[in-house]
Amino acid sequence: MNAEIIAVGSELLLGQIANTNGQYISKELALLGIDVYRHTVVGDNASRLREALAEAEERADIVILTGGLGPTDDDLTRETVAAHLGKKIAVHSPSLENIETFFAKSKRAVTASNRKQAHHIVGSNVFLNQAGLACGMACSNERTHFLLLPGPPREMKAMFQASVKPYIKNLYPKAKAVRSRVLRFFGIGESSLEDQLKDLIETQTNPTLAPLAEEGEVTLRLTIKEQDRDLAIKSLDDLECKVRQRVGDYLYGYGEDTLMGKALELLKEKEWTVAAAESLTGGLFSQELTSLPGASSVFAGGVITYTNEVKENVLGIDSLLLERDGAVSENCAKKMAEQVKEKFKSSIGISFTGVAGPGAHEGKLPGDVWVGVATPEGSFAKNLTLSGSRSTIRIQTVKHGAHLLLKV
Amino acid sequence: MNAEIIAVGSELLLGQIANTNGQYISKELALLGIDVYRHTVVGDNASRLREALAEAEERADIVILTGGLGPTDDDLTRETVAAHLGKKIAVHSPSLENIETFFAKSKRAVTASNRKQAHHIVGSNVFLNQAGLACGMACSNERTHFLLLPGPPREMKAMFQASVKPYIKNLYPKAKAVRSRVLRFFGIGESSLEDQLKDLIETQTNPTLAPLAEEGEVTLRLTIKEQDRDLAIKSLDDLECKVRQRVGDYLYGYGEDTLMGKALELLKEKEWTVAAAESLTGGLFSQELTSLPGASSVFAGGVITYTNEVKENVLGIDSLLLERDGAVSENCAKKMAEQVKEKFKSSIGISFTGVAGPGAHEGKLPGDVWVGVATPEGSFAKNLTLSGSRSTIRIQTVKHGAHLLLKV
Repeated sequence: MNAEIIAVGSELLLGQIANTNGQYISKELALLGIDVYRHTVVGDNASRLREALAEAEERADIVILTGGLGPTDDDLTRETVAAHLGKKIAVHSPSLENIETFFAKSKRAVTASNRKQAHHIVGSNVFLNQAGLACGMACSNERTHFLLLPGPPREMKAMFQASVKPYIKNLYPKAKAVRSRVLRFFGIGESSLEDQLKDLIETQTNPTLAPLAEEGEVTLRLTIKEQDRDLAIKSLDDLECKVRQRVGDYLYGYGEDTLMGKALELLKEKEWTVAAAESLTGGLFSQELTSLPGASSVFAGGVITYTNEVKENVLGIDSLLLERDGAVSENCAKKMAEQVKEKFKSSIGISFTGVAGPGAHEGKLPGDVWVGVATPEGSFAKNLTLSGSRSTIRIQTVKHGAHLLLKV
Repeated sequence: MNAEIIAVGSELLLGQIANTNGQYISKELALLGIDVYRHTVVGDNASRLREALAEAEERADIVILTGGLGPTDDDLTRETVAAHLGKKIAVHSPSLENIETFFAKSKRAVTASNRKQAHHIVGSNVFLNQAGLACGMACSNERTHFLLLPGPPREMKAMFQASVKPYIKNLYPKAKAVRSRVLRFFGIGESSLEDQLKDLIETQTNPTLAPLAEEGEVTLRLTIKEQDRDLAIKSLDDLECKVRQRVGDYLYGYGEDTLMGKALELLKEKEWTVAAAESLTGGLFSQELTSLPGASSVFAGGVITYTNEVKENVLGIDSLLLERDGAVSENCAKKMAEQVKEKFKSSIGISFTGVAGPGAHEGKLPGDVWVGVATPEGSFAKNLTLSGSRSTIRIQTVKHGAHLLLKV
């Protein structure tokens, strides 16, 4: 089985948006064991879309189309596929009800153009839209299945999960399922991780290992093609075990885990609270922690001490310390962590002081950073030497902070 | 003139990355007056790439390829295009020198596979890579120009700006240049803006107007096809003037302007400083302001008062006020702004208190938000009723805060 994806929309060809739908669907199809051989983007133009349909059906078992199901005259995917297949268009009643309910809620009348979004190709399998108005559908000729999905990513994803996945699984019950597991590492570079796993990466064929650098972290994707679920998991477990023996010290999580998420989990588990004193990070640590639901049970609060005056007046750092050691120093980082812990009555205090750039500060270069941690047992500070833009340095600093919390 | 873009790389078909190169090049070509009719993505597979080349050359004047110029055996764009055109491959000496210099700097020997990145198609125009190793190139047959660019976006963009743009301008000196201007609005919805500009949007053909909703903001792109620079600008000015007469109250900036960036500019101009007391936003306002270079001259600091205890102890909010009015109230927002202004000795204090969700808080629903502002003239607070996810509510709240600073 192989598939092609056709995204329809002039906004894609004008560069207003990227084809993230193609990416999403490709990833999902890979997990279903379906190979994707081509993505195509065409504009809102019936003849060019027909050309693309005719080409794709020569090659592919499944053609998934996104976009062009909207209410305006530009939206012509449904009509073009119907013409290509020699089929008619008709209203799909449950989809029309869906649209009528939506408009009733906002006390507006259904317009004729919105009504069009309930049209389907006669004889197709209709996918209800649970996140919007236009229905999706699947229809076939003797050689190829055509699946039509809406363009807005939120609607497309909801429909893919609810309807398209089961539909494809049902079409190809014997596709060899692909399972993958992503391990997340912090504190080790991509090339160094690759060096330590070189023989595994080069010799393993099923499962395979693929490292990827991601904003100062490294992920390792283990992928296996295997129908039997238990065998697949066992095989991934074995490989993960080999990986852990070599670089387990740097492993902090799986899949969509984040350093901050793991730190939050750990703090919850220990029933600890944390308060933050942020200088170069300007609130980024607090913002990231509080962006996670449930943060309120562990986050006592924070202070952003962007100037030495505030470090003195609000946090109570001794002006002598600031004069003697400077704000970017081990002593200042420790003191900031201790003071914020005391002021906010938290179990742990964490502090960030350093130079984000672009310019130097107090004679220190961008990337010179101290992270301080105060616990009931005492305080310490860690020096980092980071490189990159202002934004990169701030992001890396916060990741190191979350990582330190994981080790406390 | 019309162009097609072919991105080569199995990582795209596996969904590991989106085809952002296609988006970037499309946007650039539009500005050069070149229409893009199709994007194609194929994997690292010579026969499927040849098929795509043969199809594209039937339709397009220019075919731009990205990716597949790397050092590994998978990288076969150069060889495949050469075979398609019946041309030979040879070393390009200046590119080889570029690679040798790079390796000498990091004190490593040039490997055979890296040497491959200095290969070019004989007879092509070579584009030096100023941000990486693989050279790019342009070669033609009697009907189509093929341009080969590296896949990593940073390298591709640098090469596009330095070499590809002048090359295409030289090919088509008479292409009608497209100029566009983006106006940014806040405080008005997309449909309401469209209603007020409906006749202009529908009747204008050159320049055209296109509204787009963007995270609680609306942008309006004015686009004109006109060779003469002064005429183009005059025409855009005239249209902007008409737009301003109707919705000018909501216009806050142009192009890449942001609300926070404009607020920073204004504060600098007035030589004012600001301090922030953040509850539901958890540091997001401070983080966004301090992410801008130059923020240190206007940002006095901030405090994140995630709990009532901290509001009392750190910020000095009266516990009676918190009991009587609650934390999510006009009085609390005003008091927070006043107190943070005083504690941090700033010209202005700004505060954010409300419910980000997912759950209710103190009997208030998610999206119920107060933004407080304290100035030397007094303080006030504005109530917002926002909807969406926790993240959306926080982002919208901060935008409203920046917008209030613009009006102070």
